Amino acid sequence: MDIYKAGKPISEVKRELQLKKVIKLASNENPLGCSPKVKEVLSDLVEHTNLYPDASNHELKGEISKKFNVDMDEIFCGTGSDSLIKVICNTLLNPGDECIMGEVTFSRYMHSTQLMGGKSVIIPMKDNALDIEKMVDSITDKTKIIWFCNPNNPTGTIFTKDQFEKVIDKIPSNVVIIMDEAYIEYVTSKDFPDSLELRKKYPNIVILRTFSKAYGLAGLRCGFGIGDKELVKYFNTVIGPFDVNLFAQRAATAALKDTKFIDEVRKVNIEGKKYICKEFEAMGLKYVPTETNFIMVNIEREDKEVFDSLLRKGVIIRPGSLLGMPKWLRVTIGSMEQNKVFIEELKNCLK
Amino acid sequence: MDIYKAGKPISEVKRELQLKKVIKLASNENPLGCSPKVKEVLSDLVEHTNLYPDASNHELKGEISKKFNVDMDEIFCGTGSDSLIKVICNTLLNPGDECIMGEVTFSRYMHSTQLMGGKSVIIPMKDNALDIEKMVDSITDKTKIIWFCNPNNPTGTIFTKDQFEKVIDKIPSNVVIIMDEAYIEYVTSKDFPDSLELRKKYPNIVILRTFSKAYGLAGLRCGFGIGDKELVKYFNTVIGPFDVNLFAQRAATAALKDTKFIDEVRKVNIEGKKYICKEFEAMGLKYVPTETNFIMVNIEREDKEVFDSLLRKGVIIRPGSLLGMPKWLRVTIGSMEQNKVFIEELKNCLK
Repeated sequence: MDIYKAGKPISEVKRELQLKKVIKLASNENPLGCSPKVKEVLSDLVEHTNLYPDASNHELKGEISKKFNVDMDEIFCGTGSDSLIKVICNTLLNPGDECIMGEVTFSRYMHSTQLMGGKSVIIPMKDNALDIEKMVDSITDKTKIIWFCNPNNPTGTIFTKDQFEKVIDKIPSNVVIIMDEAYIEYVTSKDFPDSLELRKKYPNIVILRTFSKAYGLAGLRCGFGIGDKELVKYFNTVIGPFDVNLFAQRAATAALKDTKFIDEVRKVNIEGKKYICKEFEAMGLKYVPTETNFIMVNIEREDKEVFDSLLRKGVIIRPGSLLGMPKWLRVTIGSMEQNKVFIEELKNCLK
Repeated sequence: MDIYKAGKPISEVKRELQLKKVIKLASNENPLGCSPKVKEVLSDLVEHTNLYPDASNHELKGEISKKFNVDMDEIFCGTGSDSLIKVICNTLLNPGDECIMGEVTFSRYMHSTQLMGGKSVIIPMKDNALDIEKMVDSITDKTKIIWFCNPNNPTGTIFTKDQFEKVIDKIPSNVVIIMDEAYIEYVTSKDFPDSLELRKKYPNIVILRTFSKAYGLAGLRCGFGIGDKELVKYFNTVIGPFDVNLFAQRAATAALKDTKFIDEVRKVNIEGKKYICKEFEAMGLKYVPTETNFIMVNIEREDKEVFDSLLRKGVIIRPGSLLGMPKWLRVTIGSMEQNKVFIEELKNCLK
């Protein structure tokens, strides 16, 4: 099992390559930062580092409860989706239990399954998207969890409400359905499934959300899940008492309240997406239409070489071969200035 | 298994009891806050919430490596000792494996052992301290971990270098020896074991340290462990890539550099300890001499009643019955002002 290899930090790239300016479009971070209201809250907290965070995440859960119209005891919080995924596997899996997931999807599902001695059942992609029909058809008596990343990271694709409703009745009620919606705030499609509504009929749905993307709080580590009370009670027993730190709890609470900031984030992302897609088309590059703040582009050559060339120009992206898609690159949609630099340098590299 | 019941947060106590001033001496938090240098670092970070933390904790590990003269790959970091303990159990325990621990010690050892299906072998205390001889004599073929909390939470006692050296050779090399030294900065005894030195001879020693106590960073969640490279490699595979958040990493790095602040923390604690012990003696109360920033006192009556009375006066402490010592209270040594309020209110309660 590998230690997770994240995007290189900017400081390291600057140091290694002696670059003055470096643009990181590798980790789907928010180019707008976070809400100004969050910054106010954080500045005030600097004087209160010595106090333990509230172990019950009371204030944060209250805000989530209000915003998504769910009960407090249907919510669990953790240090980003990474930790929620681990908690779910820790709670549900015994050695030999099976989890179903897509071939090109968020890598932590497989990692956490393996950690608990579970078996990952990998279903090939269909047109770069999750083949949810095949995924559901692969359920056996040993299946404990089915991992739906929607929109899917790293392909940026979604499955629609209609597609989902065609298969959901085939999932037995003892299989936990994970709807990992880390990128939901960026979705523009009207056909996206309403999992909050669906879980009323299918209580085996567990929804995962994060503050690391649209809310711009990747540095603070906070995510949350919504699920059936009984299940959430178990998750909360497994979660450490003080996993989500004081700064993250308060920042996330303030972030949820500032809907204007999220509107701005969506607007900037839509503009950036339009620009990048247009440029890819002009360059004759195939890409996967995305419902997120990142996009996969097919460069039809060794992706690690292009990654290295871009890196030397001060642009960090994610090579597709690390994500199960060799000859592709995954690039985060950044600010318009960052997008333009990326496109310019990509053109130079592919010349 | 219970969801961890932490000390009530100040805000909740104020709200519930309609109190204006509340003093929390329940969670061994640092009354001095944190180093002013840490505050500077945190203020600067407010503008950088959107970037993921460095997954390798490179900068922080560098500082730990320098300060404690250990290799980078002998270090693992997590969101406080809580998470390190969980990682250790997650890595080492299979169902049925045994862990040896004291009867009155940090509750997370038992919790994390149970979580992995392990069996906690509980050894009764000897004069309120860990009976390390009996603990070592209880090792069987099934023992995977022996948990030494030194100083021990919640009794505040230590075992000495001599005591430890008398038993350590009886511990087989395949049993992992945890030296949980969360409170080491407060120790004044000259006979405290030097575990950093001992691990050169006994590579099965794993040392745990935290930034939550003397460094005053409980709100930020950061702790670290030092152990054998091979073992640490496994721990790092289990630890999530971004568990320690950006604020915690930078704060902890800055905190390690400010040794003057720790000197001041020790000084204030020694003065507070002297004052509280003198007052206990004047009141005829038995207490356990402590090497930490908290102290157990025997009130010889229902501790939850005294806890409630103190709470109504705005003083939060920890009732002993929650810690396995009914009729005792555990109180954090606070600022002199806090200590005086506590003593005054305790006198009123016991009248």
